[in-house]
Amino acid sequence: MNPLSPGACIGILGGGQLGRMLALAAASLGYRCHVFCPEDDSPAGQVADSLTVAGYDDDGALRSFAGAVDVATYEFENVPLAAVDAVAALRPVRPGRKTLATAQDRLREKRFVQGLDIPTAPFAAVSDPASLARAVAEIGCPAVLKTRRFGYDGKGQARIDSPGDAAAAWDGLERAPAILEGFVEFRRELSVVAARAADGSLAAYDVVENRHRDHILHTTTAPAPDAAAIAGPARRIAEALLTGLDYIGVIGVELFELADRTLLVNEFAPRVHNSGHWSIEGAATSQFEQHIRAIAGLPLGSPETLFASEMTNLIGDDVRAWRRFLAEPGAHLHLYGKTEVRPGRKMGHVTRIRR
Amino acid sequence: MNPLSPGACIGILGGGQLGRMLALAAASLGYRCHVFCPEDDSPAGQVADSLTVAGYDDDGALRSFAGAVDVATYEFENVPLAAVDAVAALRPVRPGRKTLATAQDRLREKRFVQGLDIPTAPFAAVSDPASLARAVAEIGCPAVLKTRRFGYDGKGQARIDSPGDAAAAWDGLERAPAILEGFVEFRRELSVVAARAADGSLAAYDVVENRHRDHILHTTTAPAPDAAAIAGPARRIAEALLTGLDYIGVIGVELFELADRTLLVNEFAPRVHNSGHWSIEGAATSQFEQHIRAIAGLPLGSPETLFASEMTNLIGDDVRAWRRFLAEPGAHLHLYGKTEVRPGRKMGHVTRIRR
Repeated sequence: MNPLSPGACIGILGGGQLGRMLALAAASLGYRCHVFCPEDDSPAGQVADSLTVAGYDDDGALRSFAGAVDVATYEFENVPLAAVDAVAALRPVRPGRKTLATAQDRLREKRFVQGLDIPTAPFAAVSDPASLARAVAEIGCPAVLKTRRFGYDGKGQARIDSPGDAAAAWDGLERAPAILEGFVEFRRELSVVAARAADGSLAAYDVVENRHRDHILHTTTAPAPDAAAIAGPARRIAEALLTGLDYIGVIGVELFELADRTLLVNEFAPRVHNSGHWSIEGAATSQFEQHIRAIAGLPLGSPETLFASEMTNLIGDDVRAWRRFLAEPGAHLHLYGKTEVRPGRKMGHVTRIRR
Repeated sequence: MNPLSPGACIGILGGGQLGRMLALAAASLGYRCHVFCPEDDSPAGQVADSLTVAGYDDDGALRSFAGAVDVATYEFENVPLAAVDAVAALRPVRPGRKTLATAQDRLREKRFVQGLDIPTAPFAAVSDPASLARAVAEIGCPAVLKTRRFGYDGKGQARIDSPGDAAAAWDGLERAPAILEGFVEFRRELSVVAARAADGSLAAYDVVENRHRDHILHTTTAPAPDAAAIAGPARRIAEALLTGLDYIGVIGVELFELADRTLLVNEFAPRVHNSGHWSIEGAATSQFEQHIRAIAGLPLGSPETLFASEMTNLIGDDVRAWRRFLAEPGAHLHLYGKTEVRPGRKMGHVTRIRR
């Protein structure tokens, strides 16, 4: 694909904050955005040049959306594959179908990672009581049972502390196809955000350290402290995934660092990632601009860190303190245009840069 | 006024690139924007949540626009006063009417500056052949005749090298009310971008040096080199203007530096200013966020310089080299979403940061 000319239109499936920040970055580069999402009033729709409000099963709406854009992307990994296929019949969708299908299925994802000789937590497929019993015997306890599809922010997971918990855990997940993962005693959670351009070139941001609260990302420290020994391995993992997936765009790779400093891949997200938000102020090129550059067929920008940064999500009621962050030197407030404050809802974030 | 809550709507009169960059900054802070402009497809309209396409003389459209926003601003100083009055009858407009009326009339502007004991080039009012002859005799030659209203980027100006040129110069300006300005032998052109909040607090960016081509800003160097002696005086001039105008928002003050390092005010623009674009990457708070903070009743952000920067406008055909800037380390490309390339048209800009 030739580079997308200024004024061309980028289609975004999904209307959340990731789409909003992608649209803002696209606008800085002179592109128009067309957002497709089912919600009437969405964070991304508020800043897009065009908006289609329709369901992901509305083939006619997907076809006209595709006809109106020059390239399309998605801002959440649970967008239905059929919707992506409908758009891809008419226009390039980046990252592509294979990536999305892999990321939507924890079993396929884990096998793909393993196939690249990248370590993961031990896992086994669960599809019925017999395979569940075999998995518990093989993996041991404690372990975590996770649905193969549609999990995020800790949803679709149940811990199994002893074999006797297994049946109830599976019932709790409504007996959906699942995987059992061995419980990993990790030292900390890390992630790498990285990009691959259409020409195969790669650019990884510094590895970062993430802290969660209630299974939701709370704080990212960039770069991760004490990371000299693992910066190279983390980058190489992200690059192997990007190349193995023939990926175009930005990916977020979640890692566990063990006591011996081994890195395991927990999962990857085929999109810009919450742990990359610090790059808006902290890096030479934000992850949002980087994704737009990649899907538009432009050269990647420098991922170099300009400022050590700490990003804190404003979740639910946290956002009510927004005025405080505006008065704090070095703090950068980002709000997502969501009207209703709900517990667990990501309302915005604050990035503090250190100089 | 209480601070504007997240989700509130900011009205912008004018659809150009300054409105576009204001709307992008407002979105980052969680606000919606409603753009009012006569053009169907405008740089600001492409990124606004709502858009009214109507003339500035359409009272009904102005009234509904005002009814739909929480506060309004304008992104160009030639917005008709009557349009601002129509909006101001319903909602606060910042900066206010007095500032706009002063900035729209070169004579009133110069007298206001003079009234604050801030030096300007010598000037005299011209309203008929007799006052023109008196002005030329008083100011001497060379001098520049400028229309009192609607001048920008060198338009509405004629140079008078000898008294014999005067009549033709005035005819060239269609005998509009004018002022004659003494020709100033300046060492260089500088500007200060600064802000005043609703509570009267002030924040000035570093003084910058500007180079023009064909009367259009071409390059801004921030901070201005060799500025130790004039940084304080430049800041104090901007602060005196802001306070004297009871201003809320960002102002751009254009200065001439003379050989003896005296600073004269050339003119001020009651809005974000092209010579402040470097602040997006180069300063702790961009001039666009700063303006939104001010008009939204929020505390001002730090105007501190993070990186010495050089901003270059992409004028007319310059924009055709856009791909080159994307591959240049340290360069940040901004395009304005304008479809048609025309000579003299500002299509985008590039900021290069020095580390």
